[in-house]
Amino acid sequence: MKNQFLKVFFAIIMAVAFFSSCKPKNSGDLVSGDAAKKVYVAPGKYDEFYNFVSGGFSGQLSIYGLPSGRLFKVIPVFSQDPENGWGYSEETKPMLNTSHGFVPWDDAHHPELSQTNGEVDGRWCFINGNNTPRVARINLKTFKTTEILELPNSAGNHSSPYVTENSEYLVAGTRFSVPGDYENGDIPINTYKQNFKTHISFVKADKEGEMDIAFQLRLPGVDFDKAHGGKGPSNGWFFFSCYNTEQANTLLEVNASQKDKDFIMAVNWKKAEEYIKAGKGKKEKVRYAHNIWDEKTHTGKSEIKTEVLVLDVKNLKDICYMMPCPKSPHGCDVDPTGEYIVGSGKLAAVIPVFSFGKLQKAIAAKQFDGEYEGIPVLKYEAVLHGEVKKPGLGPLHTEFDGKGNAYTSMFVSSEVVKWDIKTLAILDRVPTYYSVGHLMIPGGDTRKPFGKYMVAYNKITKDRYLPTGPELTQSAQLYDITGDKMQLILDFPTIGEPHYAQAAPADLIRNNGQLKFYKIEDNQHPFVTKGEKESKVVRKGNRVDVYMTCVRSHFSPDNIEGIKVGDEVYFHVTNLEQDWDVPHGFAIKGANNSELLIMPGETATLKWLPTEVRISPFYCTDFCSALHQEMQGYLRVSPAGSSVPLTFSLGTNMPTVK
Amino acid sequence: MKNQFLKVFFAIIMAVAFFSSCKPKNSGDLVSGDAAKKVYVAPGKYDEFYNFVSGGFSGQLSIYGLPSGRLFKVIPVFSQDPENGWGYSEETKPMLNTSHGFVPWDDAHHPELSQTNGEVDGRWCFINGNNTPRVARINLKTFKTTEILELPNSAGNHSSPYVTENSEYLVAGTRFSVPGDYENGDIPINTYKQNFKTHISFVKADKEGEMDIAFQLRLPGVDFDKAHGGKGPSNGWFFFSCYNTEQANTLLEVNASQKDKDFIMAVNWKKAEEYIKAGKGKKEKVRYAHNIWDEKTHTGKSEIKTEVLVLDVKNLKDICYMMPCPKSPHGCDVDPTGEYIVGSGKLAAVIPVFSFGKLQKAIAAKQFDGEYEGIPVLKYEAVLHGEVKKPGLGPLHTEFDGKGNAYTSMFVSSEVVKWDIKTLAILDRVPTYYSVGHLMIPGGDTRKPFGKYMVAYNKITKDRYLPTGPELTQSAQLYDITGDKMQLILDFPTIGEPHYAQAAPADLIRNNGQLKFYKIEDNQHPFVTKGEKESKVVRKGNRVDVYMTCVRSHFSPDNIEGIKVGDEVYFHVTNLEQDWDVPHGFAIKGANNSELLIMPGETATLKWLPTEVRISPFYCTDFCSALHQEMQGYLRVSPAGSSVPLTFSLGTNMPTVK
Repeated sequence: MKNQFLKVFFAIIMAVAFFSSCKPKNSGDLVSGDAAKKVYVAPGKYDEFYNFVSGGFSGQLSIYGLPSGRLFKVIPVFSQDPENGWGYSEETKPMLNTSHGFVPWDDAHHPELSQTNGEVDGRWCFINGNNTPRVARINLKTFKTTEILELPNSAGNHSSPYVTENSEYLVAGTRFSVPGDYENGDIPINTYKQNFKTHISFVKADKEGEMDIAFQLRLPGVDFDKAHGGKGPSNGWFFFSCYNTEQANTLLEVNASQKDKDFIMAVNWKKAEEYIKAGKGKKEKVRYAHNIWDEKTHTGKSEIKTEVLVLDVKNLKDICYMMPCPKSPHGCDVDPTGEYIVGSGKLAAVIPVFSFGKLQKAIAAKQFDGEYEGIPVLKYEAVLHGEVKKPGLGPLHTEFDGKGNAYTSMFVSSEVVKWDIKTLAILDRVPTYYSVGHLMIPGGDTRKPFGKYMVAYNKITKDRYLPTGPELTQSAQLYDITGDKMQLILDFPTIGEPHYAQAAPADLIRNNGQLKFYKIEDNQHPFVTKGEKESKVVRKGNRVDVYMTCVRSHFSPDNIEGIKVGDEVYFHVTNLEQDWDVPHGFAIKGANNSELLIMPGETATLKWLPTEVRISPFYCTDFCSALHQEMQGYLRVSPAGSSVPLTFSLGTNMPTVK
Repeated sequence: MKNQFLKVFFAIIMAVAFFSSCKPKNSGDLVSGDAAKKVYVAPGKYDEFYNFVSGGFSGQLSIYGLPSGRLFKVIPVFSQDPENGWGYSEETKPMLNTSHGFVPWDDAHHPELSQTNGEVDGRWCFINGNNTPRVARINLKTFKTTEILELPNSAGNHSSPYVTENSEYLVAGTRFSVPGDYENGDIPINTYKQNFKTHISFVKADKEGEMDIAFQLRLPGVDFDKAHGGKGPSNGWFFFSCYNTEQANTLLEVNASQKDKDFIMAVNWKKAEEYIKAGKGKKEKVRYAHNIWDEKTHTGKSEIKTEVLVLDVKNLKDICYMMPCPKSPHGCDVDPTGEYIVGSGKLAAVIPVFSFGKLQKAIAAKQFDGEYEGIPVLKYEAVLHGEVKKPGLGPLHTEFDGKGNAYTSMFVSSEVVKWDIKTLAILDRVPTYYSVGHLMIPGGDTRKPFGKYMVAYNKITKDRYLPTGPELTQSAQLYDITGDKMQLILDFPTIGEPHYAQAAPADLIRNNGQLKFYKIEDNQHPFVTKGEKESKVVRKGNRVDVYMTCVRSHFSPDNIEGIKVGDEVYFHVTNLEQDWDVPHGFAIKGANNSELLIMPGETATLKWLPTEVRISPFYCTDFCSALHQEMQGYLRVSPAGSSVPLTFSLGTNMPTVK
């Protein structure tokens, strides 16, 4: 009981530390004179790195340049984006479909660049949806979300998505234990310990458009937080941090902070593959959506899948092993050599570093300390390389520079600590402003970090930027890590909540076959209009299809009559431009919908339900040329049952009667 | 006929010039060595200016810092924003209501800071919705949209919103002529010349929450593009650029580029006020929404109004006067002295500068050149101060530095030209990258410009930033204008499409009573929960109201049972924090809705329709403390008709039965 009390007391101390320490001393004046030059990217020059930053509760992925900190693009992924019609146009709505129907939002935490041989390859960026569990693929030739896969049996898809060395798998672990989808879900919450489970999904991801769940592992009801795959010698293994090993279902703040040690779980996924091949998996009935973007038809398609293959780990003693880890670990990071696994326990006073070599020996020698819910628990000392002592308060996440150094973020004491992976000696520490969550070094979780910069992604900004009322921006801070000591060189604000990020050298992405526009001759949209002469308006019952084109600086047709109240009108707008950076937009007055933003060579569709007798103007919403303001048209809506004939025209007041 | 041909030919030449000239020579290397220092804002230091930039087709308002170009906040205005629940939560949905029902998007072009005595006063920023005509007020103490007013009889609310010297009125002119809302709208499009009209709205705006249309002016069917109010001596007058005086309704690219001169329309609004007082206005039946945000209840309210007062200008010969202006004018800008009105004709070869003094004399002397649709047309020479010769191609918009200089953007030749207002001599020119639309000098359209910087808001970026596939960012460029010659010092990308912007010195906004959090004792939300002990779950029929609190790091309650399929559940979440920068988020798995983002002291409501029997986890989406990951809860959904009792609890597995 005394021990219990001490643990709660410790948690309180940590919380107090957070309240009082979020503004370190010497705030702000630690910048030396050359910082301006180091971050300045002169007009006309390119940044050195693409920085892919999660939008957190925006549900999107933001693209920044480093070292300038400039925001180049917000890629819509899991959330509707009225700016470009994502989730509003007929083509994009299927991309946000789930087993729960259309879901307009999610919480995106961890961008993960695809890898070949454990190195960033510049093909794709993956990212997780946390709330309604999903993983998404973003194609880095088009910077577009091209695939979203829902994860059944899951809730709070947080320890996700992490790739294996050749992106064979995206791996995704559940944060909130729930009864499996295969069960009758009407289960009392206070039967958590008996009935709640977690699942880890191994998603085949190496072929675009063919994402699928290869198999899931069924595991005890804990909270998986973060994960990373093995590298080199440890390839074939995966590591997950888990907290709430107390299995609390209420007031986790206290009840999941009881034990001194939780776990890093080591998963032998090659072994799991063998069991799957040997037919040990069980097919179970579930429902999950798989959404694919087809670049030929410029259209998303959603399919509901109904089966998943599950391996129950408690029946298989040699897939998963628990390594004890002080306390409530968040980060779970593997160094570039693949030998060291770092657990960052947010309530821990040390940073434990585990050895993959020792792990193998300990398993062989059965150096176990009992089981946790049927999973062997290894002896802490048997798998430990060593501990980083007095690192700071609230260690959260660690990355690597490829030179033998590790960098760990400290949420509570608001700092980043640099330490030597082998000797575990602390080499340097710098303050962050304030409350750093994840940090990022370009390539810093791969076999080949690119180094040069470290970025801290902070949760609190208070006095760092000009204030904007009660709601303030969140923020990143850029550090030069080329010298022995880290140097803070820039604060830059971020969209949404920056959880994690990845970065790649500019040339790796820029020179990797990036698309500038879609070839009109390749456009296979069922409602494409490949030339102005083919533009037309077609009625079938109360459905009206407008085959419309746009080119600087007019729509065809631009006068339309014969639409009636009660019609269902589809504007299929094809952008005929064949040049880079010439989108057109389309909007019509009073629509209960967003605009369309149509890239050159693309076709997009806006659904419109006219409810009022009136003249409705439409226009181009993207300033496209000197005569952009002239790019407008009119549509006449007549009463239901009107005999006004369907006509359309361009440049004449003698409209074509259909 | 030959003349017609020449005009079309000229338009083609302009278009060709645009295609070929969008990349000026010497791109990018015009930056001198001190630029880095000039734009660098060291970590911990503040920017000098707030820059309020329209999001264009994003529908929102973005807040940047100058000189750093950093984005501090995107304020949701006319478009849904899943990041913070704007347009998704029950409280915010009414803010996007219109006479057409709920509209999730608009196109926001022109931020306008409120003024006192013709100077920026830091109280509000107004902005227009272009597509479904509306004007919005943003409160600069909270950086929140607090009022939206729809404009009847209008379409394409582009020449909007511009304030009078003391923000008595917001003035808004129609871009797309349409038949008035009061008419039977089933009108053939090719009867444009007889039936289509424009309206200019004078909106009372000086009291928050009480925006209303004082009166409208009914005018001929042309396109009003931009506007500005008079200043000092010319206060009491308003000036509007108008194009499409050809009154074309199709292929405006050609048909609205026929005449050598269109007009700047001068409006004597004090005279219009007199006519209104004298009862000359006509009350007409229309429908338009007025939406107000109540800070006490944290809730928006929408009301449909049904009447507007209209003055028909053709019956009143001394309100409006047409000043001929070369060709298809966009910008319509009044210098700080109030004497000079600059028309920027996008197809014109000169920039005409009109004199307010001469205008008054010409009206007194009846120096007319006939009428345009019943409005007196003044003789060009009679009102002209002079022309800026050979300014460049495609003049669009002009601002002022308060030192006697004007700066005009040139879309087609991609440059900014500085000239002397009195002598009309060109003093300097600098390239922009590329295709600049508007430009902005802090306070540059007021009586007292703050000067120092000029920002060009560009439409095309191509090779300026690391590429992001077919869709590229739009961009701003920052110039130092403290010397005789303009100096380009920074490129910074922008959210959406930056049309126009305004800027104010940091201290004017920062020290103007900014709110840091909402006082919980002032919270009058009908479903507020002011302490954890008051949290509860209440069922009435199939409606369930969850009175929920959040504070670092738990929700109360965090276990809820007795919810059934078919229920309508409202989570009313009150953030109990009373400190700056501690929002909490709320989301529940599978909701067909966004998250809530709840500021300290605020209550927000998420509507959720459970459709499946299952355990649904909910959690805090905004990283709020070291134990944020533990801030989660569970809700059990039982089948319709289930007898599971309604219970809720926190920290115990002995739930309270309601």
